[in-house]
Amino acid sequence: MLAPGATIGILGGGQLARMLATAGARLGLKSHVFSPVADDPAFDVCAARTIADFHDEAALADFAEAVEVVTYEFENVPARTAQILEAHRPVRPNPRALALTQDRLIEKQFVQSLGIATADFADVEDAGALARAVARLGRNSILKTRRLGYDGKGQAQLRDGADLAALFRALGGAPCILESFVPFAKEVSVVAARGSDGQFRAYDLCENTHEHHILATTEAPANVAPETARAAIDVARRIAEAADYVGVIAVEMFVVVEEAREAILVNEIAPRVHNSGHWTLDGAVTSQFEQHMRAVAGWPLGSTRRHGNRVLMRNLIGDDVNAWPALAGDEGACLHLYGKKETRPGRKMGHVTRIL
Amino acid sequence: MLAPGATIGILGGGQLARMLATAGARLGLKSHVFSPVADDPAFDVCAARTIADFHDEAALADFAEAVEVVTYEFENVPARTAQILEAHRPVRPNPRALALTQDRLIEKQFVQSLGIATADFADVEDAGALARAVARLGRNSILKTRRLGYDGKGQAQLRDGADLAALFRALGGAPCILESFVPFAKEVSVVAARGSDGQFRAYDLCENTHEHHILATTEAPANVAPETARAAIDVARRIAEAADYVGVIAVEMFVVVEEAREAILVNEIAPRVHNSGHWTLDGAVTSQFEQHMRAVAGWPLGSTRRHGNRVLMRNLIGDDVNAWPALAGDEGACLHLYGKKETRPGRKMGHVTRIL
Repeated sequence: MLAPGATIGILGGGQLARMLATAGARLGLKSHVFSPVADDPAFDVCAARTIADFHDEAALADFAEAVEVVTYEFENVPARTAQILEAHRPVRPNPRALALTQDRLIEKQFVQSLGIATADFADVEDAGALARAVARLGRNSILKTRRLGYDGKGQAQLRDGADLAALFRALGGAPCILESFVPFAKEVSVVAARGSDGQFRAYDLCENTHEHHILATTEAPANVAPETARAAIDVARRIAEAADYVGVIAVEMFVVVEEAREAILVNEIAPRVHNSGHWTLDGAVTSQFEQHMRAVAGWPLGSTRRHGNRVLMRNLIGDDVNAWPALAGDEGACLHLYGKKETRPGRKMGHVTRIL
Repeated sequence: MLAPGATIGILGGGQLARMLATAGARLGLKSHVFSPVADDPAFDVCAARTIADFHDEAALADFAEAVEVVTYEFENVPARTAQILEAHRPVRPNPRALALTQDRLIEKQFVQSLGIATADFADVEDAGALARAVARLGRNSILKTRRLGYDGKGQAQLRDGADLAALFRALGGAPCILESFVPFAKEVSVVAARGSDGQFRAYDLCENTHEHHILATTEAPANVAPETARAAIDVARRIAEAADYVGVIAVEMFVVVEEAREAILVNEIAPRVHNSGHWTLDGAVTSQFEQHMRAVAGWPLGSTRRHGNRVLMRNLIGDDVNAWPALAGDEGACLHLYGKKETRPGRKMGHVTRIL
């Protein structure tokens, strides 16, 4: 257990790092934020800062020496960055978990190796492989780059008659994965944590809606059968244990209804705190941010108990944030603004939580 | 209304400033902390810092120019400091409220001028005045310096046979006030806020216990008759309105039972967030810290609704904080540590909240 006063290094300086840093401060833990972007929002709330590129090896080594443990707010940490840091300090979640979730093909293979269902998929190395994959999975499929995709970036829905080679080129000719479209009834996610001693705790299963491939709303608990919620949480637990995971993990899943029964398919794993867990800041005894800092610091996990009957979270994307004066005066709305200087379409600017 | 991205200046860098700064960050507001103590805990979580003496006029002027509005975490801001700052920027709560609460005599006269009851008291300018005051109020009284007292410092209980002149000298010969001891049934406090538009919102009345003159525990709501709670909150509202107050105010009161009915006497006013409101961080929709930042920034006030049936807060004073590993593992205990480097007897190191 790191003692209060210890410093946790955080890679990335966005809103997740910002909320991690303030949650750490509640526990008496200091945060040292490393980001290449000088006006990143996390720099406003941290005890120490490094403004440097993720490939700046000297800066990484100095950063690692200045902290007790390293964590990150985003999964696209370059492998070499993680390697350099790990030579100095523990990196949590471990770089294997990071590698697993950076590549959609490896992630899906890992999940299936645990006996957990996913959408059907095929490895697409080149345009020829795409044609063969479409022959097997059909046109009701989505082509995604294996690496570096988020919020709908790096993916394309197949259309009847589309030129497959052109589609592959449009995604940059990078290695891809073709996934069958899942006719889901709901999108849900498990936000959970695993401690350094193997303790596992999940929040209530969340139900999510997306707009333009970006999370729009989360509701907890999800409106599914109790056995579906239990099964979803068990899936997250098995994934975390298999990856020897330490920290908060989010597992996005589809709920499909087959013969009037709900079944679960894993869609994506995020090795970090997650937008669908933001409701826990106001709506649970321990927020996902504090939970992550506890796990990373080797502390026991906190209670995941929910306040109220239901908790609703709505993202403020792009211009949505201009409604802040009305939201500030909206009785019972817990408003969170991320301190970003510039509002851009599709940019996450804040969120609002309501406890019902 | 200050827009998100604006900077609020905070005088003082202790745990109250630290929790104000993190609460402001939730709303997208930056904090600039001014304190003479370089390793003060609030410096770990603020966007900008000034380490300078409260009498450093040039530093104060620079600080004021760098922020939109100034607030403070402690009532003993020197009058000249407030004056210099007010020449540049709004100071909230206003310096008149600050002056009122810096002097126990002026404070009690102000409260009584509103028709609100306090303990009987007498002005004690010198040892001769002390003898006359004791003749009037009796020996069951407490002698307190008019200024700069806190946590039992600057006060002395009168004993039978005590040498009054020696007692007066022991408090430094400073102007004092003699207060009748109040045979109270309970100590309670109202933590409330008044917005820049006059909007007033109170949290549930809190019931407090003290040990060695320092707050030990707070429970919300207080176990008093509903009409007593309503009367207490009305007293706080009248005080805030009379002082044209903006921000969070705490009014400590005694509950006395006369002929089986509860009555209220005002003991002390704190023109700031208050230890007896710390439970709101975990136990209310809007924390007292966010509420203060909202008021100071000219925003509407947030909901003061409580979570759960009861909320308990216990301070970690001095060595109490050494229990942190057990508290970290105590299911449902919300642990707060203030990041102070040195543990000293009587020093507030953290607190624990439980929602029942």
